[in-house]
Amino acid sequence: MPAAPEKLPFSRGEYDRRLSLVRAAMDARGLDLLFVEDPSNMAWLTGYDGWSFYVHQGVVILPDADPLWWGRNQDANGAVRTCWMGDDRVRPYPDPYVQSTERHPMQHLGALLREIAPGARRVGVEMDNYYFSAKAYLTLKETLTEAELIDATALVNWQRAVKSDEELAFMHRAARISEKAVDGVLERVEPGMAKNALVAEIYGDIIRGAGDDWGDYPAIVPLLPSGSDAAAPHLTWDGAAFQRGEATFFELAGCYRRYHVPLCRTVFLGDPPDHIRRAEAALIKGLKAGLEAARPGNRACDIANALARPLEAAGIERGARCGYPVGLSYPPDWGERTISLRPEDETILQPGMTFHFMPGLWMKDWGIEITETILIAEDGPARTFCDRPRRMHVKP
Amino acid sequence: MPAAPEKLPFSRGEYDRRLSLVRAAMDARGLDLLFVEDPSNMAWLTGYDGWSFYVHQGVVILPDADPLWWGRNQDANGAVRTCWMGDDRVRPYPDPYVQSTERHPMQHLGALLREIAPGARRVGVEMDNYYFSAKAYLTLKETLTEAELIDATALVNWQRAVKSDEELAFMHRAARISEKAVDGVLERVEPGMAKNALVAEIYGDIIRGAGDDWGDYPAIVPLLPSGSDAAAPHLTWDGAAFQRGEATFFELAGCYRRYHVPLCRTVFLGDPPDHIRRAEAALIKGLKAGLEAARPGNRACDIANALARPLEAAGIERGARCGYPVGLSYPPDWGERTISLRPEDETILQPGMTFHFMPGLWMKDWGIEITETILIAEDGPARTFCDRPRRMHVKP
Repeated sequence: MPAAPEKLPFSRGEYDRRLSLVRAAMDARGLDLLFVEDPSNMAWLTGYDGWSFYVHQGVVILPDADPLWWGRNQDANGAVRTCWMGDDRVRPYPDPYVQSTERHPMQHLGALLREIAPGARRVGVEMDNYYFSAKAYLTLKETLTEAELIDATALVNWQRAVKSDEELAFMHRAARISEKAVDGVLERVEPGMAKNALVAEIYGDIIRGAGDDWGDYPAIVPLLPSGSDAAAPHLTWDGAAFQRGEATFFELAGCYRRYHVPLCRTVFLGDPPDHIRRAEAALIKGLKAGLEAARPGNRACDIANALARPLEAAGIERGARCGYPVGLSYPPDWGERTISLRPEDETILQPGMTFHFMPGLWMKDWGIEITETILIAEDGPARTFCDRPRRMHVKP
Repeated sequence: MPAAPEKLPFSRGEYDRRLSLVRAAMDARGLDLLFVEDPSNMAWLTGYDGWSFYVHQGVVILPDADPLWWGRNQDANGAVRTCWMGDDRVRPYPDPYVQSTERHPMQHLGALLREIAPGARRVGVEMDNYYFSAKAYLTLKETLTEAELIDATALVNWQRAVKSDEELAFMHRAARISEKAVDGVLERVEPGMAKNALVAEIYGDIIRGAGDDWGDYPAIVPLLPSGSDAAAPHLTWDGAAFQRGEATFFELAGCYRRYHVPLCRTVFLGDPPDHIRRAEAALIKGLKAGLEAARPGNRACDIANALARPLEAAGIERGARCGYPVGLSYPPDWGERTISLRPEDETILQPGMTFHFMPGLWMKDWGIEITETILIAEDGPARTFCDRPRRMHVKP
């Protein structure tokens, strides 16, 4: 018995839409079947939801039959409870395959693929998505000798780029959670408060959710480095106190049923020095210019180039891309790993695409972040999911 | 300038100890150098701490020079701030390598390895640890044609099995956080409370920490399925209310500076049925027998077999292993992926080894968990890190 429809996040029509897109992409690449180990892609296609991606698992997409869920035996009950397919499409492997030096789960998968699709010769695998390891690849290749393994990295991810109305509704819910979390930060942060104490409150806001919408876990933990540590974008917290005279950026996202809307803001405790004020002003100008450029028919690089002009005028050169698509995600990343907002990416922007427009400034000994999650509209500039003042917040 | 000693979690002597162990293991395998992409292994060897493992990064271990940190340019500041090595050992790659279809970070790594160790012919890589993808392997192999890539999966993990006194001190601190989180659950859970509301409190307790010890993020989010959903060990939460007449297990861990001490307990709201009472009694007996068997000189399988006897007497057959080593970890797993407590694993237990002794029962339509994180002592049975009643908690 498949998961009860009222338990599934999306309509069956929505899952059919996704499957059709993926099958068309498989067809274009001449794939007989596709093995998907990326947990975000698994969930997007089947509804599967569980923290079991630390062992090998995946879904198998076939041209002419429902997907198969494949994973560890003890997770089969979770698959039955969360996937839309019938129970007979859940095909687990026995526990002794887990983290063994004598056998590998991909031996089991190879035998299963041979059983369900004996004629499959071109088998797509996600060579550079998460969790499909080098050993998994070699073992599957050795087991399924009659087939060729074809690199299908990001094949599913690309189908996720344009969001459906059902997905956008989830992101709007996530946005309310993001706003609540940022409001909570601005209200609570003060000199002397321990960082971990504030993170505890951030988690409280994010998990409690907003209104009737419960909060899911974001794919990245809150990041909130201060002062010179803000030069490093990915430091997490410790028990140190916030200090007067320092900027802290807060990189966080609300998450509604695995859909993320990141929203980052910076707080300065005290009186900001001129160089940070100038950077803030240039960043705000750059964000505005980027939103203007983020129109359907324009290219990803147009956003990056629009951002760069006011920054360069202020003498700031950013080395990094300034954004990426967001939506459904599992750890370790809330990005979709397809389009990058950077000068070399000429992907055409389409209505329904969603990006975290993320021009963080990480300089030698300071850093600030002011970001927006944006939606490419039917026409005109991009819309932001959140509605919060786009500036550095100063607490004197 | 390396990280200030007072910022490093451990003494330089402790990092030297770890490096010596790894170099000896490399020598035994005839490796000229070792590339480590597993973030837990990276942190254990160098102190590196940041949420940047969603892009390719790693540390390079050489026989006769300090390790190199290699990763994305924007994370170099984080490496300089958290690693014990000098700044000249931090060697980043430019941002356009990130998630590009035209170039791969492993091309950059290959060139770097050739520069720093031109004579290296046998290069160890972690073929089945997290984050070293199939594509990463093939690209490094194509780039570094003069070397052979040797599977060094879990080489570092095995050196982590016996904990030092410095590490055990961190785990004892984590244990106080775990106890606090479990106490909070038992105090708060009641029929009608929304699951996500309780998870918000759990995160509050875990991140606030215990006493002066701030809480770090656990590598797995809290898991708390109820009733028939408890048949599935890895379901996360939603906004549904706890119900009278259901068992819920709480799988969670306190974490102190990346060191975990998982502690799971089950709560029954109402009057437990006989089959759950009988399972609880058998499980408590099995845990006691397992602790008795967990002596230095005994084998990993002795714990599993001791647990199995009272369970089998009660008609319960578990398909899964009943434990794994724990300590320092990053998502997606808090296990160390070396030893498994199961009948086929004959690893000799040594003083200082630490395990999550985890005999969860996930049956057809119910489940319970009562677990302990244990330390193999100098002699006698294992000690538990936490001191909380080892039973199912009933709230009538």
